[in-house]
Amino acid sequence: MKIGIIGAGQLGRMLALAGYPLGQRFVFVDIDEEAPGAQVGRIIPGQFDDPAALAALAASVDVVTFDVENVPQDAAEAVAAKVPFYPPPAALGAGQDRLGEKRLFESLGIPTTAHAAVDSQADLQEAAQRIGLPAILKTRRLGYDGRGQRRLDTPAELEGAFESLGGVPAILEAFVDFERELSLVGVRGRDGAVAFWPLAENTHAEGILRQTRAPWTDAALQAEAERHLQALLTRFDYVGVLTVEFFLADGRLLANEMAPRVHNSGHWTIEGAVTSQFENHVRAILGLPLGSTAATGHAAMVNFIGRLPALEKALAVEGAHFHDYGKSARPKRKLGHCTVVRRSPAERDQALSALLRLC
Amino acid sequence: MKIGIIGAGQLGRMLALAGYPLGQRFVFVDIDEEAPGAQVGRIIPGQFDDPAALAALAASVDVVTFDVENVPQDAAEAVAAKVPFYPPPAALGAGQDRLGEKRLFESLGIPTTAHAAVDSQADLQEAAQRIGLPAILKTRRLGYDGRGQRRLDTPAELEGAFESLGGVPAILEAFVDFERELSLVGVRGRDGAVAFWPLAENTHAEGILRQTRAPWTDAALQAEAERHLQALLTRFDYVGVLTVEFFLADGRLLANEMAPRVHNSGHWTIEGAVTSQFENHVRAILGLPLGSTAATGHAAMVNFIGRLPALEKALAVEGAHFHDYGKSARPKRKLGHCTVVRRSPAERDQALSALLRLC
Repeated sequence: MKIGIIGAGQLGRMLALAGYPLGQRFVFVDIDEEAPGAQVGRIIPGQFDDPAALAALAASVDVVTFDVENVPQDAAEAVAAKVPFYPPPAALGAGQDRLGEKRLFESLGIPTTAHAAVDSQADLQEAAQRIGLPAILKTRRLGYDGRGQRRLDTPAELEGAFESLGGVPAILEAFVDFERELSLVGVRGRDGAVAFWPLAENTHAEGILRQTRAPWTDAALQAEAERHLQALLTRFDYVGVLTVEFFLADGRLLANEMAPRVHNSGHWTIEGAVTSQFENHVRAILGLPLGSTAATGHAAMVNFIGRLPALEKALAVEGAHFHDYGKSARPKRKLGHCTVVRRSPAERDQALSALLRLC
Repeated sequence: MKIGIIGAGQLGRMLALAGYPLGQRFVFVDIDEEAPGAQVGRIIPGQFDDPAALAALAASVDVVTFDVENVPQDAAEAVAAKVPFYPPPAALGAGQDRLGEKRLFESLGIPTTAHAAVDSQADLQEAAQRIGLPAILKTRRLGYDGRGQRRLDTPAELEGAFESLGGVPAILEAFVDFERELSLVGVRGRDGAVAFWPLAENTHAEGILRQTRAPWTDAALQAEAERHLQALLTRFDYVGVLTVEFFLADGRLLANEMAPRVHNSGHWTIEGAVTSQFENHVRAILGLPLGSTAATGHAAMVNFIGRLPALEKALAVEGAHFHDYGKSARPKRKLGHCTVVRRSPAERDQALSALLRLC
C-alpha cells in the first residue's frame, strides 16, 4: 500500500522508517524538498493546504495521514472526501484551537485548567481577575513548543499583553504549579480496538520538550488517563495515535493539550516498547491489528535541540539509540533524539545523565 | 555521510533502515531498479561488477560496502582503491571459494569438515573413497541457499555427479550428521574493537534457512566460536560484520562456511539485541563506537520463503515484528521474515509455533 503523509518532518520520517518493514511505501507533501521525510520517501512539493499538491497526493496513495497539526481542517476534509484520511479531520481541527480543545475536555468530563477566551485587552483584564495571576496568555491557534504564549505574573504585565501576541484570538489559562507533566499516548484501530502505552514523564526547557522518562508507573493515574483518552478516541471515532499531555497537580491529572498524531513524548517507544507509536499508527490507519504497547524496560529519551552532539560521543553511551532527523541546525530546532532502555529506573536515570551531558 | 552499497537486496535495505536514524544516506548499485533497497535509497543501475556503475558509486559516497557475496574481488579492489571499502576485498574473495574458505579455516586452527578439491570425475571418485559417503558435492563458487550442491549417498550416485553440477571446480565435503547448526555473528570496528552477538541456532529446509532461535546459551561453545571468529577478523584486519556457520557435532563446533556480511541468521538482532547487526555494521564501517550486542530476551526469527503470509495474520501474533522486503513472490525466494522476542525460551518457542503456522 502507499501511504500519503502531509508534512515530511521527523515524525513523517519516523513513520516511514517504521512502515517500510511492513512493506508500505510513502509519499509526502512538504514545501521543503530536503525535509527529513524526503530522504526516505517521495516528495510532492507544496504547502500543507495547497489544493493541487493535496489532490496529487490523494490520487497517488491508498490512505492519507499527517505529521503536522497545522493542516487546515477544510483542506483535510477535501482530501478525506477522496481517500481514507486518518486521524479524522474533526480531531485535527479540535487540536488547532486551544479554546475549543479546553471546551472539548470539559464536555467529556476531562479535568483541565481554568481558562477564559480573550479577544481583546478588556477580555484579558476581566479574565485575569476571574482566574487570578500568575496565568498564561496563549494564542488560540498555531502555538507550539512555547511559541505564541506569555506568562503573566503581575497586574502590570497585563498591560499591552494582548497586543504583544499579535492581537489575535487568545486564551488565558490559570498557571498550574504542577509537580510533573505526564503524557499518555494511545492508539485506536479502524475496528475500534484501542491500546495505550504507559504514562511518560516529560521535562520541558524554554517551552520545548527536553526529556521523557517512561514508564511512569502509577496504576490509578494510568487508568484515569486512559479513561480520558478513551473518551476522546470514542468522541471522534478516532483512528491512529492520539496524545494528551497532562499536568499532575495535587495528585490529580489536568489535561493540558492534545495532539492528534504521534508525539515527541512517545519517541521512547521505538526501543522502549514492544511496538512503537510509529508502527502502531501505520497499523491503525491501514486497518491492521495493533501491536503490544508494553514497555520492554525503563526508557529515557533526550531531545537534541539547536545542535546535535557528535555521533561518536552519543554512540559511546552504552545502549544509546540515536535518531538524527537529517535537518540543518538552527536554534530551538529539534534535530534529533537519543533513547536508552535499562532494566531499572535507577540504571535508566544514570544513563539519562550521560545523555544529558551530550546536550 | 553517504554510504554506498553494492547490491540492493533485503540486506542492503535493512542496512539503510538501520542507518537512517544515524543520519546516513544510501546509494546502491543494482541491476534491478525495483530492488528492496531501491525503495529506501538511490539506485545506480548496473551489475555488481560493472566498472562504470562502481566508479559512479565510488565518486558519490564516503564509504562502500556490499550486501551480496558475489561481487568479484577485483571489482571490489578497484573500488577500494578510490574510497574506503569494508569489509576488506580479501575477506570477500575468501568467502567466494569454498575450498579456499576451508583451507583458511584450517590455517587458523578452526575445525572444519573433511573435504577435498574435485576438478574432475576422477577426483570425485578418489575423494569419495578417502572421505567416505554420504558426502556433499558443492561447486567451489557461487553456491548459496542450497544451490550448486548435491548430496551423494551411494557409490552409484557418484556417476555423472561432477558433470551434473556443470563440470566446474568443486569440493567434496564429508556429510556431517550434526545435532544443530549454530551461527555466530560478530563485528569489528575500524579501531579493532570487536563484539559478538550470542550464538544462534538455525534450522534449514531444502537448503534455505527457515528459522533461527537466539540466544543459544552455552558459555563454552560461545567462547570457542568467538575465538574462531576473532582469528578470522584479525586475519583480514576486518571491518564490519562477519558471520560463521558452525555444525555442532559430538559437542564440537565445525566451521561450515563464513559470510563476510550481515547474515540472515542475525536478523533476530533487530528486535532481540540492544544493537542490531545492521546498525553495528554501519557503525563499524563509519569508524563509530560499536553498540552493545547483548540479547534483550529470547528471540525467534522465521523466514518467509516463496510467499508472504497475510500481513493482518502475521501482525495478529502477539509481539510479531514483520519485515517485508518489498520483493515480488517467486518460489524459494526470501520475501520477508518475522521475529518475536519473549522473556523465556518456553514462551519464545510457543510464539515461534504461531509464526510457523503462518508459513
